[in-house]
Order: sequence, then C-alpha cells, then structure tokens
Amino acid sequence: MSDQFKSASIISIGNEVLSGRTVDTNASYLGRQLRLAGVPVVSAHTVGDRREMIVRAIELATSEADIVVTTGGLGPTDDDLTRQAFADYLGTELEVREALLEKIRAVFSRGGWPMPERNSIQACIPRGADAVENDWGTAPGIVAEKDGKLLFALPGVPREMKKMLEASVLPRLRALGQGQTVAVRRLHCYGAGESAIAEMLGDAMDRDRNPLVNCTAHLGIITLEIVASAGGADEAEAMLVEQESALRAVLGELVYGVDDQTLAGVVGEALARRGQTLAVAESCTGGLVAKLITDVPGASRYFARGWTTYSNEAKVAELGVASDLIETHGAVSAEVAAAMAQGARREAGADHAIGITGIAGPDGGNEQKPVGLTYISLDGLEGTSTSRHVFSRDRRSVRLRAAQTALNGLRQRLRG
Amino acid sequence: MSDQFKSASIISIGNEVLSGRTVDTNASYLGRQLRLAGVPVVSAHTVGDRREMIVRAIELATSEADIVVTTGGLGPTDDDLTRQAFADYLGTELEVREALLEKIRAVFSRGGWPMPERNSIQACIPRGADAVENDWGTAPGIVAEKDGKLLFALPGVPREMKKMLEASVLPRLRALGQGQTVAVRRLHCYGAGESAIAEMLGDAMDRDRNPLVNCTAHLGIITLEIVASAGGADEAEAMLVEQESALRAVLGELVYGVDDQTLAGVVGEALARRGQTLAVAESCTGGLVAKLITDVPGASRYFARGWTTYSNEAKVAELGVASDLIETHGAVSAEVAAAMAQGARREAGADHAIGITGIAGPDGGNEQKPVGLTYISLDGLEGTSTSRHVFSRDRRSVRLRAAQTALNGLRQRLRG
Repeated sequence: MSDQFKSASIISIGNEVLSGRTVDTNASYLGRQLRLAGVPVVSAHTVGDRREMIVRAIELATSEADIVVTTGGLGPTDDDLTRQAFADYLGTELEVREALLEKIRAVFSRGGWPMPERNSIQACIPRGADAVENDWGTAPGIVAEKDGKLLFALPGVPREMKKMLEASVLPRLRALGQGQTVAVRRLHCYGAGESAIAEMLGDAMDRDRNPLVNCTAHLGIITLEIVASAGGADEAEAMLVEQESALRAVLGELVYGVDDQTLAGVVGEALARRGQTLAVAESCTGGLVAKLITDVPGASRYFARGWTTYSNEAKVAELGVASDLIETHGAVSAEVAAAMAQGARREAGADHAIGITGIAGPDGGNEQKPVGLTYISLDGLEGTSTSRHVFSRDRRSVRLRAAQTALNGLRQRLRG
Repeated sequence: MSDQFKSASIISIGNEVLSGRTVDTNASYLGRQLRLAGVPVVSAHTVGDRREMIVRAIELATSEADIVVTTGGLGPTDDDLTRQAFADYLGTELEVREALLEKIRAVFSRGGWPMPERNSIQACIPRGADAVENDWGTAPGIVAEKDGKLLFALPGVPREMKKMLEASVLPRLRALGQGQTVAVRRLHCYGAGESAIAEMLGDAMDRDRNPLVNCTAHLGIITLEIVASAGGADEAEAMLVEQESALRAVLGELVYGVDDQTLAGVVGEALARRGQTLAVAESCTGGLVAKLITDVPGASRYFARGWTTYSNEAKVAELGVASDLIETHGAVSAEVAAAMAQGARREAGADHAIGITGIAGPDGGNEQKPVGLTYISLDGLEGTSTSRHVFSRDRRSVRLRAAQTALNGLRQRLRG
C-alpha cells in the first residue's frame, strides 16, 4: 500500500451467505460506495459466526488494506460475535456504554415494550473504541483504530448498513481520501474475442498502470473498465477521457457503448434518431431479438413488427418465403434467412428488417449443418446482406449470441 | 475442524465484485452445492487480480477449511493470475500440457479461427497438479493437494463453473463427505403471494425442523426448498418425499413444478403430451412469451407461430383484430386481448393461443389505464377467457409477470 492511496477490505459476518441461502449484496454495495469515496476495495471476506475466524479475517484484512469495514454479527443473540472479535483483535475488553443502553431502551419503549435483557449486549463497545450511531435500528456500530488502520463494524441489515455508511463512515473516509478521487467508465465491445482485444490493446492492460484497464467477457460482449485515480475529480476525469480515446482509437467500431448502454438500446437510439423502423423475423431465436428490442422503454417508436416462425409453413404463410427456396436450400440457409428479412420488411413496411434462421440445439444438427449454425440477414434500402456463423456452447448461448450478432450487424449498418 | 466432517472455503478472484459492478452469485451457488454434497462452507474470500493477495487468501482458506475452491482468474489475459498463484502456493512452476493446448486449439479451429498466442497460457498447470476438464469453454481448471488440503480452481464464468463443479468437483467431494446425507427438493408455486403461502403452511417453516423448509420469492414465483438431513441417503429421501406430499396437500395446484422445471417447460410438456400446438400474439411483452417457450429444447413440436404486434396497424394486419374494436375500447383492453388470441389461433391453425396487451411503462399510463395494466386472453376449443391484472414495479417486472401469468393460465387450462 502506498502512503498516498488508501484502500479498504470488507468482511461479511454470518452463515446465511455461506450456506447459499442469500447472495451477499452488501459487499457489492460497499465496494461501489467505498470506491466512489476514493477508497478502492482490494479484498472481501465472508466468515461464519465464529469468534476466532472473525479475528483471523480482521488480521488478514488489516494486512491487505488501510480500512476495514465489517457487516453483520451485531445483533443481540449468542451467534452475534463481532463485538467480541473486535475486542479480541484490539487486545481489550467490552464495556457497557450507559448512553447507548439508554438509547436502546428508548427504541423499545417507543414500541411499547421493555427492553429484553439480552439486548443490553448491544450497548457494549470495546474499551478505547467508539460507537457508530444507528438511528434506524437497535445495534450501534463500532469504529476503532489500531496500528494506523481504521476499522468499522456495521450491522448486516442492508437498510441500516447503508444509512450508517452514508451518515458516519463515508464522510470520514472522504476526509481521509482527500486528495484522491476515482473515476470509472466501462466500454462495451462486440465483434472480437477477449484475447483478440487484449492483443490489440498491447500493454494498456498492465496491472500497474493508472488508469487501470480491466477486461471481462460475457456471451460475446467484452467490457473494458477504465479506473482512473488522481488528486482531484477534474484530473481523474481528464485521465479517463484520455484513456477512453486511446482505447477507442485502437478498437474503432468494435466499441458499441459505455456504462449502462446495451446493444438493443444503441440500435434503438440510432433508429429513433433517423426516424426509421425495424421488423424482425425469427426462427431459432424464437422471439428473443424482439424481446431484447422491446426491453428498451419507448421501443414502440421504431419497432414495427415481429414474427416467430419456427415451422416452414409459418415462414411461407407469414413472410412469403418461397417454399421451393426451403426445399432447395433447407430452412437453415442463407437464402431463407434473406427471404425472411425481405418478407418481414415488405410485410411490415419497415425501413430495416432482421431475418434469423439456425439450429439452436441441443438436437437437430448434422455434419453439414451442425448445432449452432446460424444465418443472419439484414435487409434495408442499402440491400440485403447475409452472414453465416457457428455459435458454440448450449442452446441459451447460441440463441443469445445469434440475437446479439444480429443487433450488432444492424448497429454497424446504421453507423454508415 | 472435526475429523468426520469436511469443510470448505471459497475464494472469488477478480476485480468485478470488489468494485461493486457485479454481485458474486458464484459464492452463493457454491455454498449451496457444497452443502448438499455434505461439505459446509465455513468462509468465503474475494480478492482482486493480484498474485500475492490470491496466495495469501489461499493460505488463510486452507487454515480454515479442508477444501478450497477458487473461481475466476483463469482467462487468457494478463490480469488472470490464478494459475500463477496456485503455483506459488504449491511452491512450484507452471508447465505447458500439450493435451490441453491441443484441446484449446480445437475449440478455436471449430469456430474457424487460429488460436491467439496468448491463449496458450490456458494450457499451463502447476507441476504436480492436475487439470479439471472444461468442455464448455477454453480455460481448464486445476486440482491440487498440499498438506492434506484439497484445492480446486474453476473459471469465473458461472456457466462453466457450474458444469465443471458438477462433472468433476462434486463427485469427488461426495466421496469424502460420506456419513451424512442432505437431500433437497424445490417446489415452485405460482398464483399466490409469499405471505399467503406462508400462512397456508402454518408451522411447516419453523426454523428448528428437519426437514427444513425455506421460502424465497422472485417475480411472482414462490419457491419452497425442502432440506432433509439424515444418516443415510434413503432415509433423507424418504423424509423429503413425506414433506413434499404434506406441502402439496396444502398448496394443491399452486405447485407447478419441482427443481429445475419452469412454467414454460411444464406447459410445453403438457402440450406435447396432448399433441397440441400453441400460437402467441404479444403486445407489451414484445416477444418475451415466445422467447420463454422456445427457451425449451424441442419447442418446435408444439410452438406454432408468434407475433409481436406493438402497433395498432400490426394487430389489424397480422391478427385480423377489428379496427373499430381498438377505437372503441383502446388497444389495451379485454376485447383486444381476446381478438389477438383468437386471431393468432385462427391464423396459425393452432389448438391454443395467448393474446397479451398492456402498458409495460415507464411511460404510457394514465389514471384509467395505469402502468402495469395488462389483459391476458387464452383462446382454445374450450372458448376464450380473458383476465385483467395490474402488475407493479418496473418495466422488466411487469413484462415478466405478464408472461408468467399467461403461461400459468395456460398450464391450468391444460390440467383440466
């Protein structure tokens, strides 16, 4: 850890996550909030309700980062052990704080109940540490320092955790992190694999650079996350912008969007901007392309009509595909994909149309036409263009890759 | 750790979770699957793409548990460091395995590409360790032993991770975890809320029971997970069966399926069994119902045809909806939903048809017809039935609830 940049580690305490009963959304929330406060999270740990394991996790976390935030284990029952573990780590004892006890009693009496005896443990704080106010529940948090490291204990209830983080923890961290701001942008790419993109980028993804560039791949979408850390917001933003244009210069039209943009959203914006409409004729994707397009609010401005024509009869009856075309080339062919796109455009009176036919699997493939074989056709004023693909993996992947590839093809057409 | 019961620790590797960009669903999935294999997870750790931090996490995890499973960091780029960290922890070097290299080359050549040079790193395994086969992607996993601890490295892509866990890791762990068996079954319900179902079940959901019944709700689907623990597999299975029939006796036809069954799958099976076909006419769901139905392999046996008719013109031209019906009652009305279903059934020559029209939002609602208002119509030999709903939350939820409710209505029709 350098002196200049503070970092954080998160510890989630409790058995729920470990048993697979719940997904730990606290960790992801904390990760985002701390990063925006200028304190990147470098590790996260989850341990069960066992005192010595909590202590060991705190020891590891303080060796990894300057700031440690724990969530959970502050309730009143015997399996809530965060207070004791903090005391162990600090080498001290718990002591009752009268002011906290009064506050907890007041919470109960407001509800018309006496405080159950066991809740008095929630008024205990390790000697030398301070309480973090909790105005949204009974369990106060803990803030402590040791060997230059800063530790916070917050409740596991997401609502209380978030309120206390905002009210007490983040202001303190922002003061610490002064002088440091983190700016983040994600660039989404389609049309090349992860390694091809990594090769294009050369040393831009080296681990010790600032801005840092992280790369993830999901069903053909490659996302580059740019993280810029600097002394001030303007400086971080400027670094981000510079890195983004460097990446865009290399990647060109592979980049389809930033941050929360989707392929369907980008295509929709381009259609709306041009005042044009789209029709979709789907065989193997079975409605998925239409679904993706209409996921976007306001899609009615440009989405004209969609057909799911699985059978040959449906292709002939709905889209006017010539039946001898199907007989000669087969339903999964470039000719039929093109006829589907042309038929959909004609029938809907649309400016653009997509036609897709393929074999999503797991059955229905053979040596000439394997599972995953897909023909995608785009029809418009510019004419018809049809491409052949063999998508791999399972039915779900084949369908999603086919749909995304069709949308990406249309995106490129609309750029021209 | 007792001698008898083995325990596990999970390490998630990668910056995505730490930065708050993604929620770590892998950890929760692994927690559940390992528990079912008789190996409870006692801790989980998340570290960024930094070699020395991965090594330290492995050291902590092996001190906490007998079995360590890592996910992530097996890709081909410079920020994929799990292989190196395993080698460091084992005190050895990476070596290229020719057989793996061949396999990775074959994956690329099937797609019609040469293997990029950097993918060759994925063929490297620490000396003395073994590869875990990956038939669903390019990155093989790693299995290694040290000081009586068993370590597995799996990819971070959820799909590949799950397949490899099932094919290679769980069989090995089940053999270790002999002695105690956990049997689990999930019952999926549709048509009543979580609290209504909880009231119907009375004390069946008490926390100290065996079998334990957990309840989760997701977009209208209520899932009851039955967990039976016993000394032997037969005994656990018998407890499960008994608990399942007790729940079914109370819940009746609210239960639509078990374990991996989906509403679309159950509806598809019923149609296939009867040798009947289905057509779908969608407005607000925009292809989602067709997509859900064709998600199921073999849907071509019963899925006749689908239309996405967003505009009034499309409803008139494709489905023969009378335009004065739309003028009189509006496009979002029971009358139009029924005419869409009837038109789709007639046009496709199908046995059953679904018609859906509604306001998915966020815009387009008013006082009489709020966002979320949806009419769902079913047409068949039995006649036409139409229902009115107001689904809440966001566009995504409204669309998904509308689609699921339509499928559930058809399911009930097909039971009759």
